[in-house]
Amino acid sequence: MKVLVILGHPDPGGSFNRAIAETACRTLEALGHEPVLRDLYAEKFDPVMPLGEEKLPIEELPAPVRNEIRLVREAGGFVFVHPNWWGTPPAILKGWIDRVFRAGFAYSFSPDGVISNFTDKAVQVFTTSNTPRDVELEVYHDPLENFWKTIVFGLVGSKTFGRRNFESVIMSSPDERAQWLAEAEALVKERFA
Amino acid sequence: MKVLVILGHPDPGGSFNRAIAETACRTLEALGHEPVLRDLYAEKFDPVMPLGEEKLPIEELPAPVRNEIRLVREAGGFVFVHPNWWGTPPAILKGWIDRVFRAGFAYSFSPDGVISNFTDKAVQVFTTSNTPRDVELEVYHDPLENFWKTIVFGLVGSKTFGRRNFESVIMSSPDERAQWLAEAEALVKERFA
Repeated sequence: MKVLVILGHPDPGGSFNRAIAETACRTLEALGHEPVLRDLYAEKFDPVMPLGEEKLPIEELPAPVRNEIRLVREAGGFVFVHPNWWGTPPAILKGWIDRVFRAGFAYSFSPDGVISNFTDKAVQVFTTSNTPRDVELEVYHDPLENFWKTIVFGLVGSKTFGRRNFESVIMSSPDERAQWLAEAEALVKERFA
Repeated sequence: MKVLVILGHPDPGGSFNRAIAETACRTLEALGHEPVLRDLYAEKFDPVMPLGEEKLPIEELPAPVRNEIRLVREAGGFVFVHPNWWGTPPAILKGWIDRVFRAGFAYSFSPDGVISNFTDKAVQVFTTSNTPRDVELEVYHDPLENFWKTIVFGLVGSKTFGRRNFESVIMSSPDERAQWLAEAEALVKERFA
């Protein structure tokens, strides 16, 4: 099974986000799956949806968006990895959702209401932040959980959904980060076993 | 007083978002203010924050970002206008926040905690959507209210804050939209009187 590992972090080198994405890829391979890394910064993915794109048929979309749609169609699941920037993903990943999870593909309208088209796909989200967990939950109402679980996958559907936030990355020790990567590995195994 | 009117909508022509932004500009002028329209699509604003940009001093930032920062510094307030895409602003506006509302400018760290630097700026947010209001509040937990009021302006501060969502744009009649624009005018007057 192909699994998209979608990384939205500017650092091409040694970020903890990248370490999570690489751990996810290795773990998926060990499970016999085929990880497909989408490093959105490396791809220079353009997150700005132009006027009228939502009305174009898929075959008339710009090639990079068409390519993402093909990869999503072939995939049995997703691993998303990104930092928390203002309670939302970095713009490059926000715009990937805007352009790729389009109506008529990720979800459809029918006379009986909205149809979720990704109910056969497993989802694991990893996010990182520097905000204390109680502040994120109590003051900000865990906006990334709401975004991914309720808004995005609430609409497009999923077979299973999990999310783990690691914090505070800036205050973490190498030992703690190693434990977090072990936890990421365990979660990917659980999600895609 | 200069007021930034920040529009995040792809349509250069006749969108309802543009009508709101134009109403805001006209109303601000009638109040004796100087509206500064930032049409992010027309500006081709690049919302993708590159590696390490957060560590650069302002004078070393790319010219377009430096320009936005100068305009924000000169402004006594903001009017934001955008549609609800996945409970968040379109990527072009999400990335404007990522790059322009940077640490050391919009907010600062001190030994006593975070300092909000925009407590002298008035804020009015207009958003548009097609989701029924009860679903937006009860199922999705009003994510744009949380984003703008609690997360963004909760951190950077504001003198006054207001937000109005107009829905459902797709189902609205010309009369209803005219009423909404009258309401937008009244809210801008109230906020920037």
